[in-house]
Amino acid sequence: MMVANGARPCARDIGIDIGILKPGRWNAITDVRGVKVGHVTLVEGEGRLIPGRGPVRTGVTMILPHDGNLFWEKVPAAAYVLNGFGKSIGLHQVNELGNLETPIALTNTLNAPLAADALIEWSIGHNPQIGIGTGTVNPVVGEVNDGSLNDIQGCHVRKEHVFWAIANATSGAVEEGSVGAGTGSTCMGWKGGIGTSSRALPPKRGGYTVGVLVQTNFGGVLTVNGAPVGRELGRYAGSRDFPYEIPEDGSVMVVVATDAPLDHKQLERLAKRVGLGLARTGFYSSNGSGDFFIAFSTARRIPHDSPLILKTEVVSNDAMSPLFLAVVEATEEAVINSMLKATTVTGRDGRTVDAIDIDRLLVVMRKYNALNWSKALPPWGGTE
Amino acid sequence: MMVANGARPCARDIGIDIGILKPGRWNAITDVRGVKVGHVTLVEGEGRLIPGRGPVRTGVTMILPHDGNLFWEKVPAAAYVLNGFGKSIGLHQVNELGNLETPIALTNTLNAPLAADALIEWSIGHNPQIGIGTGTVNPVVGEVNDGSLNDIQGCHVRKEHVFWAIANATSGAVEEGSVGAGTGSTCMGWKGGIGTSSRALPPKRGGYTVGVLVQTNFGGVLTVNGAPVGRELGRYAGSRDFPYEIPEDGSVMVVVATDAPLDHKQLERLAKRVGLGLARTGFYSSNGSGDFFIAFSTARRIPHDSPLILKTEVVSNDAMSPLFLAVVEATEEAVINSMLKATTVTGRDGRTVDAIDIDRLLVVMRKYNALNWSKALPPWGGTE
Amino acid sequence: MMVANGARPCARDIGIDIGILKPGRWNAITDVRGVKVGHVTLVEGEGRLIPGRGPVRTGVTMILPHDGNLFWEKVPAAAYVLNGFGKSIGLHQVNELGNLETPIALTNTLNAPLAADALIEWSIGHNPQIGIGTGTVNPVVGEVNDGSLNDIQGCHVRKEHVFWAIANATSGAVEEGSVGAGTGSTCMGWKGGIGTSSRALPPKRGGYTVGVLVQTNFGGVLTVNGAPVGRELGRYAGSRDFPYEIPEDGSVMVVVATDAPLDHKQLERLAKRVGLGLARTGFYSSNGSGDFFIAFSTARRIPHDSPLILKTEVVSNDAMSPLFLAVVEATEEAVINSMLKATTVTGRDGRTVDAIDIDRLLVVMRKYNALNWSKALPPWGGTE
Amino acid sequence: MMVANGARPCARDIGIDIGILKPGRWNAITDVRGVKVGHVTLVEGEGRLIPGRGPVRTGVTMILPHDGNLFWEKVPAAAYVLNGFGKSIGLHQVNELGNLETPIALTNTLNAPLAADALIEWSIGHNPQIGIGTGTVNPVVGEVNDGSLNDIQGCHVRKEHVFWAIANATSGAVEEGSVGAGTGSTCMGWKGGIGTSSRALPPKRGGYTVGVLVQTNFGGVLTVNGAPVGRELGRYAGSRDFPYEIPEDGSVMVVVATDAPLDHKQLERLAKRVGLGLARTGFYSSNGSGDFFIAFSTARRIPHDSPLILKTEVVSNDAMSPLFLAVVEATEEAVINSMLKATTVTGRDGRTVDAIDIDRLLVVMRKYNALNWSKALPPWGGTE
Repeated sequence: MMVANGARPCARDIGIDIGILKPGRWNAITDVRGVKVGHVTLVEGEGRLIPGRGPVRTGVTMILPHDGNLFWEKVPAAAYVLNGFGKSIGLHQVNELGNLETPIALTNTLNAPLAADALIEWSIGHNPQIGIGTGTVNPVVGEVNDGSLNDIQGCHVRKEHVFWAIANATSGAVEEGSVGAGTGSTCMGWKGGIGTSSRALPPKRGGYTVGVLVQTNFGGVLTVNGAPVGRELGRYAGSRDFPYEIPEDGSVMVVVATDAPLDHKQLERLAKRVGLGLARTGFYSSNGSGDFFIAFSTARRIPHDSPLILKTEVVSNDAMSPLFLAVVEATEEAVINSMLKATTVTGRDGRTVDAIDIDRLLVVMRKYNALNWSKALPPWGGTE
Repeated sequence: MMVANGARPCARDIGIDIGILKPGRWNAITDVRGVKVGHVTLVEGEGRLIPGRGPVRTGVTMILPHDGNLFWEKVPAAAYVLNGFGKSIGLHQVNELGNLETPIALTNTLNAPLAADALIEWSIGHNPQIGIGTGTVNPVVGEVNDGSLNDIQGCHVRKEHVFWAIANATSGAVEEGSVGAGTGSTCMGWKGGIGTSSRALPPKRGGYTVGVLVQTNFGGVLTVNGAPVGRELGRYAGSRDFPYEIPEDGSVMVVVATDAPLDHKQLERLAKRVGLGLARTGFYSSNGSGDFFIAFSTARRIPHDSPLILKTEVVSNDAMSPLFLAVVEATEEAVINSMLKATTVTGRDGRTVDAIDIDRLLVVMRKYNALNWSKALPPWGGTE
Repeated sequence: MMVANGARPCARDIGIDIGILKPGRWNAITDVRGVKVGHVTLVEGEGRLIPGRGPVRTGVTMILPHDGNLFWEKVPAAAYVLNGFGKSIGLHQVNELGNLETPIALTNTLNAPLAADALIEWSIGHNPQIGIGTGTVNPVVGEVNDGSLNDIQGCHVRKEHVFWAIANATSGAVEEGSVGAGTGSTCMGWKGGIGTSSRALPPKRGGYTVGVLVQTNFGGVLTVNGAPVGRELGRYAGSRDFPYEIPEDGSVMVVVATDAPLDHKQLERLAKRVGLGLARTGFYSSNGSGDFFIAFSTARRIPHDSPLILKTEVVSNDAMSPLFLAVVEATEEAVINSMLKATTVTGRDGRTVDAIDIDRLLVVMRKYNALNWSKALPPWGGTE
Repeated sequence: MMVANGARPCARDIGIDIGILKPGRWNAITDVRGVKVGHVTLVEGEGRLIPGRGPVRTGVTMILPHDGNLFWEKVPAAAYVLNGFGKSIGLHQVNELGNLETPIALTNTLNAPLAADALIEWSIGHNPQIGIGTGTVNPVVGEVNDGSLNDIQGCHVRKEHVFWAIANATSGAVEEGSVGAGTGSTCMGWKGGIGTSSRALPPKRGGYTVGVLVQTNFGGVLTVNGAPVGRELGRYAGSRDFPYEIPEDGSVMVVVATDAPLDHKQLERLAKRVGLGLARTGFYSSNGSGDFFIAFSTARRIPHDSPLILKTEVVSNDAMSPLFLAVVEATEEAVINSMLKATTVTGRDGRTVDAIDIDRLLVVMRKYNALNWSKALPPWGGTE
C-alpha cells in the first residue's frame, strides 16, 4: 500500500529561506543532473503491535547517482561516520576504493540486511558475471530505527519493494516527509522523514550544484532558521508533558550529491560538513544516534574494468569552501523540509507522532523574525 | 550436507612451531575461556556452475564470546580495517560503542546480509524486546569471496545454518581447514580455510591468553616460518604454470579473543597487529583484499541496561607489548594451520584447488631448516 | 608587554543565554575542578610590518588539567581533527595512549614548534629523567594563524612566555577576548580571541561539569543565539564593503575539560561534538580552517609508572548524551564570549580588526528576539 | 663533526636478496627520479652523560621530493600512523590536503620541534610571503628516541644542521647506517639507523619505481629473509645475557616515494603497507613504538596558487597491488640495510650498541639457506 504525501509546504513555501546561497531549480538532490530518487511507502494495519505482523509504518528510499549501469560505471564517493551507533552497510568499501557501485538504499534498521540482499540481486540481474567472472558487488544501505511507530521486527520491506523503488525513481521534484524510508521516523519530538534541498554555486565559484537528501529520526531541540521552536512549543527531551518519552536517541542518514569533480578525499571532506548543517537544527549527535553521511560526485564515471591509468580532473582544495557551505546550508534546509512535509502518523499501539503544526510554527517564526530573510537581508556576494 | 575434515596435521604436529611465546592448551581461540566456535559446512553438487543451483562449496563459522545472553551482557570489542575492499557488517557500531552484542558470523561475501538477518532473528528470539521495548541489535558478519569454487550467487547459507552453527558451537578443539566459512576459500594458490592458534603469556606478563581465528582467502607468496614455500613450489601470482590465474586479490577475516582486561582502544590496538602476523606468511594486502579484524575481551561484561557508572579495570599501556606479540605470532600460526588442515576441494566447473602437499612442504621446510625451532633455539625469557 | 582586557560584557551579561543547560559557577573551563588557565599577551610596536621585528600582536594561552606533575600523573584525553589544515603538535600520541602529559599550549601557527620546545624544557625541568631514565615527553600545542595582524614570521612567543603563562595560570574567572593566544585572531569578520563557557549537568545525569575554551580565528557568517548578526551587520565572506577581504579560512582550537570519568573513546566522542557547537555560530569548517579539538577528563590520573592493572570507572555509553549536549552548548557560548570580550586591535600595516559593536549587536538581537531566553522560555527538565 | 660510514655491505652485497621484484638502479629511495637525501651526522664527546652537554650521537636526515620550490609546487602525499606513540609533526595537514610542501626531516624525538622550526625558516627564506601575503607552511618531521646513546635532552641538532642537510642532499647512492637521523638509533638489539631500498615494476605493471627509506629504532626479534637471526644470536627482548635491557619499545619512521601517479587515498594505501614489510623483519609494533609512515608521489606537482580545476591522472585501483608488494619488499630490505650498514656506536655513559656481526650473520643465513634466492629460486612473472 502506498500513501501520497499531503499538500504541506516546504520551508521556502512559507518564507523559511535558509542560508546565503541559492537553491537549484527543484531545491532537491535531483538538481544534480542524473540523480534520481524513488520511494516505496508501506502503511498497513493499525492498533496493537503484533511483532512480525504489524502495524506497518516503514518503507524504502533509493538514491541513484545515474541512469547507467552503476556496477560498470561507478561514481567517486566517500562516507563519513559522525556517530557509529547504527547498522549502515557497505561504507568500508566506499572509503577504501573511493567509489559507489550500487544505488543507495535507505530503510529501517532491521531491514538493512534485506535491502543489501536486494541490491545484490538487482546488481546481479544487470551484471550476471558478478561473483562468477568478475568480483562481487558492494551494496550500500543506510537505516534508522522507526520502531516507535512501526513493527520493525517484521522487516516488512521486501526485495520487490527495493526493486520497485529503483524502477520508479525519478528526477525532478522529490516527494518528502512521511514517505519511503521516512514513513515511520521521528525527529526532535515531531514526525520526521525524508527531506531534500540543494545549492547552486555562482559561476565564479565553479557553478556547481550540491544536493542533499536526509532521513531524519534524531533527537534534540528543534531550531528553525535560528528560532527556538522546540522550546517555544515545549517539545524537547526531558520536558514534562509528553505522552511517552521522546527518544533522545535516533539516527540520521544523509546523502550528498554534487556535479563538482571531486576525488574521494574531497568527498569525504564534504561528508564531514553534514553534521554542521544538522547542528543548526538542534541536532547534537546523541549517544544512540547513528549518523552516517555519504557523498558522491556525478562528474565522472569510473569503469569497472579500468585501464592502468585514468585521466581525471579535480577541484583544487582552495575552491572547496563554497562547496562546504553549500553542504551545510542544504543539510539544514533538508531537515526542516523533512519535518514540514511530514504528515502525522499513527502507528503501533495507537501511538501518534504529530507533524509539526504549521500555524503554530509560523507564530514562532514571526516572533523571532525568522522569515523571508532572502528578501530582508543582503544576498551573498554582489561582487561574486 | 556436512563433511568432516581429514586427518591432516596442524603446524606444530609437523614441527612448525612459530614464534617465541607458548600456545595455550588447544592452540586455538577457544583457549580463551568461554569462547566457542561452530561451523556448518555446505558441500553439494559438482560440475558446471549453474548460478543459484550449485555446485555449493561454502559454509558459515560462528564465534561466540561467551555462553550467556550476549545482547544483555556485551563484551568490549574493537574492529580494525586494514584494507576495506570487503562487505563486513556491523563494525561501525562495534567501534563507536566499543562492544559486541552478537556472535560473530563468518561466511561468503554475498551471504553476508543473510547472515546478518539470521543474527537479528536469533537475537530477537532470545530478546523479544529488541526494537520494541529497547533498541535494535547490531549483527557482526565477516566474509570472503569463495566464488572461484562455490556458486556464490546462490547464497546457499540459510538462516537455519547460522542457527545450527551457533547451537553446535563448542569449546575445546576447533575444526580447521575446509570447513564452515573456509569451505571454498583459496589462499596464496592453495586451499585456505579456517585456522586458529593461541598464545599464553607468562605469569609475570599477566598470564593472559590470546586466541586467533582466521578465514584465509588471500593472495601472496607463501612463506612458512621463514621458508619460501610459495617460490619453491612455484605457486605465486604471475607464475607461469597455472591452469588459471591465481587471484592475487582475496580477503582475510581475523577474530582475536583475549581474557586480558582491555578497553576499546586497547582492543583496537590489538586488532591493528593482526596484519603484522599475516605479513609473515606472504600476505601483502593486495588491492582487492578485504582485510577486517575484530578483537574482543572476555574479561568483563557490559550490561545492556547499564548503571550510570561502570567499575572496571584495564591493563596499563606499558603492559600491552606482550599481548601485541601474542597476536602477531598466533595470527601467523593460524594462517599456516588454515592451509595445512585444509583438504583439496573441487568445485564449480570442475575447478580444483589443491591442499598444500605436506610431503613437499616438509622437503622445503627441511631445506630451509625451518622445523622444530622451539627445541633447537633458546626459548623466550627464562627469567620471565 | 601585557595588556589587560577591557570591561566588555560576556554573552550572559547582556542576555545572550545559550542553550538549555545551566553554566557552572564561573561559566568557564575552570569550573572543572583543578583546571587552570594562564595567558601571556604580547603587544608591541605598530605601523608597517617588518618581518621578524613587528608589530607584535600575539601570545600564548596555557590550559593545565591539574596542579600536580602531569608527566607522572597523566589524565585521560583524546583529540579529534575536524579539518586538518593546521599545525597542531602532539595529537597522535594523545590518541594512541589516550592520555595527556603536558599542559596544552595555544599560540600562533609559526610559534607552535617553539611552544612545543618550551613544553619539553618545562617538563624536563620537573622530570629530569625524561629521555634519560624514562621515555620522552609529548608536548601538545594548538595554533591559529594571526598573521593578518601580527608579525607571525617573527615568532615572538619565546620560551619564557610559555613558562610564565604556566606559572601564572589560575583557577576561577578566565580572562577572555584579545588576550594570550587570541591577541591577534579574527573571527567571522570581527576580532576573535579566547572564549570560555561551561555546563553543569543535573545530579540525575551525574552532576558532571563540562568546560570549554576556544581560540577563535575562523570564517563564516556570524549567528548569535540564532540571530543573523553577520548578515544584518554586513560582515561575511564576499560582502562588498570590506577594507580587505575577510579570510574565509582561519582556524579554531577548542579544549574541552570534564570531571566525568570518561575513557579515551568517550573523550573522543566528546571532542567530535565540538564542531556541532561551532556550527551554531556560523562556522562551516572552510577549506583553510585548522579545526582541532582536545578533550580531557580530570576524574582520574594515570601514573607514568603504571602497575600491570589499573582500576577505573567510566560513565556508561547510555549516560553520554547530556555530556554531548553540554559540549555543544558550551562551545557555542564560548565562541560568542570570545568575540564579545575581544577588543579592537590594530596591528601590522595599520590594519584594524574591530571588536563587534555591542550596541549594534543588541539592536539585532532585539530585532530577532534572541535575548533572555532562560527567563522567557521553559527550562530543561523540570522532572529531572 | 661528521663521520663517514664504513665499508660494511648492504643486504644484496652478501646475497640477501629479498622478495620477487627487482630493485632500481641504486636500490634506494633516490631511484625515484628527483628525490634527494641529505644527512648531517653529529658525534661529539664520550663518557658520562651530562644532560645538555653530551655525549652527542644524533643527527638529521632530509628527504626532498624534488629540486624545485616545494611550497609553490607541492607533491601529493599521505601519512599513516600504525602506532602513534611518537612526536611526528605535520601529518594532519598532509592528510587533510593530500600534499607535502616541505622536505621531510628525520631526527631525534626532542629535536622534532626545532627541526620543524628550521623547516619554517628555510621555507620562508625561499618564500618570503609565507604568513604575510599567503598562508603559513606545514613542516613535516619524523623522529625516533636515540636517548640510549645520545644526550637527547641536549637537542644538539641545530637549525644550521637542517639547512646543511638540505643543501647537501643528493640523488644517486644514499649513505646508510649510523648516519644522520640514524646515528644513535637501536634496532632489535643491534645498531639500527638509516636504510633504503627500491623496487622497479615490470613495464606491464606500469614500470613505476617505489623507493623506501627507513629510520630504524624498534624492538622485536630479528628475522633476516626468513632466518631467525635474533634467536640464533640470542638477542631479543627478555633474553638473559644482556648488559642492559633491550628497549622493547622504540620507533620507526618510513618514507615511501614513487613516480606512479597516485592520489592522496592511494598514497595512504601505500603507507598502510609499510607495516607489513616491517613485520617480516621481526617488528611487532610494541606499545612504545612510534610508527609513522609517509608516502609521496613525484608524478605531478600541485601549484600553491591553484586554478579552480586541476587536470590529473591516477593509477586505477586494480593496478595498485604490484605497488603494494613493492612497498612491502623495499621496506623489508631497507630495514636489513639499515642494520647491515650501521657501525658500532659507543655513546653516553660508555654504552655500546654493536653493529650486527656480518660473519656471524652469514653463518646463520647459510644455516637457514637464506642467501642468493634470486639465483636459486624462480623469478617473478616470466610472462609479465
